Amino acid sequence: KNKARLLISCPDKPGIVAAVSKFLFGKGANIIESNQYSMNPEGGEFFIRIEFECPNLLERQSEIKEDFRQIAEAFSMEWKLMFVAETKKVAIFVSKEQHCLLELLWEWQSGDLMADIALVISNHEDAREFVESLDIPFYHIPANKDIRKQVEEQQLQLLNQYGVDFVILARYMQILTPDFVAELPNRIINIHHSFLPAFVGAKPYERAYNRGVKLIGATSHYVTNDLDEGPIIEQDISRVDHRDDVAKLKKIGQSIERSVLAKAVKWHLEDRVIVHENKTIVF
Amino acid sequence: KNKARLLISCPDKPGIVAAVSKFLFGKGANIIESNQYSMNPEGGEFFIRIEFECPNLLERQSEIKEDFRQIAEAFSMEWKLMFVAETKKVAIFVSKEQHCLLELLWEWQSGDLMADIALVISNHEDAREFVESLDIPFYHIPANKDIRKQVEEQQLQLLNQYGVDFVILARYMQILTPDFVAELPNRIINIHHSFLPAFVGAKPYERAYNRGVKLIGATSHYVTNDLDEGPIIEQDISRVDHRDDVAKLKKIGQSIERSVLAKAVKWHLEDRVIVHENKTIVF
Amino acid sequence: KNKARLLISCPDKPGIVAAVSKFLFGKGANIIESNQYSMNPEGGEFFIRIEFECPNLLERQSEIKEDFRQIAEAFSMEWKLMFVAETKKVAIFVSKEQHCLLELLWEWQSGDLMADIALVISNHEDAREFVESLDIPFYHIPANKDIRKQVEEQQLQLLNQYGVDFVILARYMQILTPDFVAELPNRIINIHHSFLPAFVGAKPYERAYNRGVKLIGATSHYVTNDLDEGPIIEQDISRVDHRDDVAKLKKIGQSIERSVLAKAVKWHLEDRVIVHENKTIVF
Amino acid sequence: KNKARLLISCPDKPGIVAAVSKFLFGKGANIIESNQYSMNPEGGEFFIRIEFECPNLLERQSEIKEDFRQIAEAFSMEWKLMFVAETKKVAIFVSKEQHCLLELLWEWQSGDLMADIALVISNHEDAREFVESLDIPFYHIPANKDIRKQVEEQQLQLLNQYGVDFVILARYMQILTPDFVAELPNRIINIHHSFLPAFVGAKPYERAYNRGVKLIGATSHYVTNDLDEGPIIEQDISRVDHRDDVAKLKKIGQSIERSVLAKAVKWHLEDRVIVHENKTIVF
Repeated sequence: KNKARLLISCPDKPGIVAAVSKFLFGKGANIIESNQYSMNPEGGEFFIRIEFECPNLLERQSEIKEDFRQIAEAFSMEWKLMFVAETKKVAIFVSKEQHCLLELLWEWQSGDLMADIALVISNHEDAREFVESLDIPFYHIPANKDIRKQVEEQQLQLLNQYGVDFVILARYMQILTPDFVAELPNRIINIHHSFLPAFVGAKPYERAYNRGVKLIGATSHYVTNDLDEGPIIEQDISRVDHRDDVAKLKKIGQSIERSVLAKAVKWHLEDRVIVHENKTIVF
Repeated sequence: KNKARLLISCPDKPGIVAAVSKFLFGKGANIIESNQYSMNPEGGEFFIRIEFECPNLLERQSEIKEDFRQIAEAFSMEWKLMFVAETKKVAIFVSKEQHCLLELLWEWQSGDLMADIALVISNHEDAREFVESLDIPFYHIPANKDIRKQVEEQQLQLLNQYGVDFVILARYMQILTPDFVAELPNRIINIHHSFLPAFVGAKPYERAYNRGVKLIGATSHYVTNDLDEGPIIEQDISRVDHRDDVAKLKKIGQSIERSVLAKAVKWHLEDRVIVHENKTIVF
Repeated sequence: KNKARLLISCPDKPGIVAAVSKFLFGKGANIIESNQYSMNPEGGEFFIRIEFECPNLLERQSEIKEDFRQIAEAFSMEWKLMFVAETKKVAIFVSKEQHCLLELLWEWQSGDLMADIALVISNHEDAREFVESLDIPFYHIPANKDIRKQVEEQQLQLLNQYGVDFVILARYMQILTPDFVAELPNRIINIHHSFLPAFVGAKPYERAYNRGVKLIGATSHYVTNDLDEGPIIEQDISRVDHRDDVAKLKKIGQSIERSVLAKAVKWHLEDRVIVHENKTIVF
Repeated sequence: KNKARLLISCPDKPGIVAAVSKFLFGKGANIIESNQYSMNPEGGEFFIRIEFECPNLLERQSEIKEDFRQIAEAFSMEWKLMFVAETKKVAIFVSKEQHCLLELLWEWQSGDLMADIALVISNHEDAREFVESLDIPFYHIPANKDIRKQVEEQQLQLLNQYGVDFVILARYMQILTPDFVAELPNRIINIHHSFLPAFVGAKPYERAYNRGVKLIGATSHYVTNDLDEGPIIEQDISRVDHRDDVAKLKKIGQSIERSVLAKAVKWHLEDRVIVHENKTIVF
């Protein structure tokens, strides 16, 4: 299609919207949706996401990018122009628990996840049958902390080979090394099974049970080198009570994990998420 | 202060944002917040709310309005320019139950309701003491359906005398006549004690109890001549179960009514609500 | 296993709990969970659900039932004794939209739906492949209001043949006749795609969109002869706003429908729901 | 009135309910509400709360307590019998922010908080006027960590003088010493302005803002000597987004704090909370 999304961050000052909207109007573009946010109108960081439609967009890609450069420089913008026609390629990593993977595949099957699921990588065999039944390549790469280096090399090679844009950790229970993370900055989405920053790390449901919380949650975030400390994209919670043991908490939690991860992935696919320092703006 | 809000509705077509933002830039204005929505980029209705700051704004009011007229005409805009310095004057109507009135007065006392509460009108005496203790004029106007006409004349005269901009029905249990409503189009905010369109009309908690619902709610809306059918501004709900009798439902419901009405009133005060046909856009 | 659930309704008066708990203690039973509710301790209806474990329960079924009859008569009880070992047999009816069916099958596959899914009946072919891949019999019975009678005869015959205990309407878009409903009193669970009693009947998402509601919902209820008026088991809602068109409301709604129906079915399977007049007590 | 509540914890084994309900029946009591929970039917801890009505209850207090002792010993019960007619006496501690205090006083005025508010103690003068206008004694005791000892002595003396049963910390921003806490085990209710265990300690809203969470919360808990680590009674959350700065988070949070604290206090007043190890059972 002829749709694109322009994402901009720059220091706020008068005239940004005027300049950008005049530019788009000059190119014959029609703005479909526009969202903006300023941390402080007097010199704070300014963010805008504009979705627009433009005749013959794909043919004019380089012209539009070229011409926009001038405005971008005048306002010291960091910017990205994403074309809707260029579907993002994603790899899903999963371990034993498959509820998050299933939710994503299901959404994808019903046409609600506008991604190209390039491959699924798992350190277990469990998911193979279902993944392959959908004609998605499945790779079983056993993993543990002693062979982390080799495992990640294999994974990166596959990501490369398939031209993957970003990775979803759909309950992948291995820690990634800084080298791996550095290859995909703000392009690895994880689902953590707690309401961060509560219960960072292992066994959050067990710890939630022991602490006697009355709500449990799940958090989807971009992966950084600080475990469970990356920019949060989405969170949600569910009410629990004293009768819910750890198994019940896990069960209730799975439901939250599924929907929180699916939301975060969709927003990422629609280029709605801008990362600023360690936080997200979700438009 | 030098802040204003520009609200626009018009048929969507390319160039609107470019024209408006160029205009504001030309006036030396700095956009603080901007939200827009298009029902359909190809000729559907387009809505935008822009909050901006502009030096010497109040002195230049008429100049700015005058100059904007040209753009407005070119795009067939319906528009309003509201100056933050001109605090809105509000009258609160209340009957026996005071929880909504109290919530509003409380928010107002803590500086979170940027309105000038001009007067409180009630068909009962109960609220007088507390209202007057805050130096707000209180008028007791007994009401029933036989004297509706005279009552409303008295009320309108008071609204006139105090220069009231809009009215809040904070659980005012009298029906207003079309004549009264016509005087204040989209400027009367009601709180209905149900999740509309469920339980339109009288005794919603009794009917919710009899129907055996598992959630009860409250709805804030602009008043039109169709009872409880006006444009909805905000709704919320709370979970209930079989143990909750009517008295308990009322109690739980009061909490929802308080917060739903307070939210709707704040959004109205910040000029965040645009009414289109029988629906609201809340920016 | 040796588990059972005793469900009782009777007029409240002193001594009920004493009599029942003494009886169970006398049989060597250990109470695992017990919930009770009284509409009015002075003669209102009293409800209790007791889950207990008892050695050699299945061999002693008739003895226990026989002996309990005496207490039941003394207190004018309506009662049911359900043995956990006797897994309930269910038929799922579905039309074109499969999200609710999929959710149920998924829960069933992961061992969280303790039912025997005896068969799936649909007026469309869409679901056949997935259903049969799980070794569940699938019957395609085309339906429309002109052949309702014959269709229902076929369906009832299948229910009979498979010894079905209850039916789930997982977005089955045909109205059932009173004769069909009479065969399965309080044993047909429907999911309605609105927050009842709002938007009874057809096209609730379209009507929710037109009304401009700020929350949409779904309701699971037992089917009676009054369309969408049966006893409500569970409801939930999700927040929406002016940007959500009908397609988006449907999508958001599907998520609620899935979880609300799954909850209602689980509670029914665990014998947690008692119907009293047109309402449910959910323990 | 003739109402009482019996709260019991003991190791689970068959016959507990039979024994207790037989006892109450023997005394002519009518059970109004009963809730029970077993951590593990095979020897885990068992908890029950029974609310009952009994003719001439207050005259027969000592007889009933005396006679129950026998059963209590047979089952190694910890138990409490609370008479509804003996209204609990409470002291409220508050610092500068008054929203939680106001909520409690408001609930109390409308008859929804069945407590005797004996006095309010504050390290600031701000609340005096409103508190005294309700004829509740107000004590201003300036406090800081250097004079903690003397301050607490004064406070304890007042609690003693007024015969206070429990204390509510309605945003009292001073840390209590172990000596003070030891005087009122599980009888000091605090409201912490975060979703515990996230953001234990000072400035939770600032830290929530910096972490970029998408939900903020509040937690009501009994105070122990581990800061913000006591048994949680109730928690709730509200959705926030990138536009909400610290001031806005505080404002949104105040609403949650008010309702979470009010709920926890009501449950405590109705003897619905049993503390077991560091967790609560809320019936």
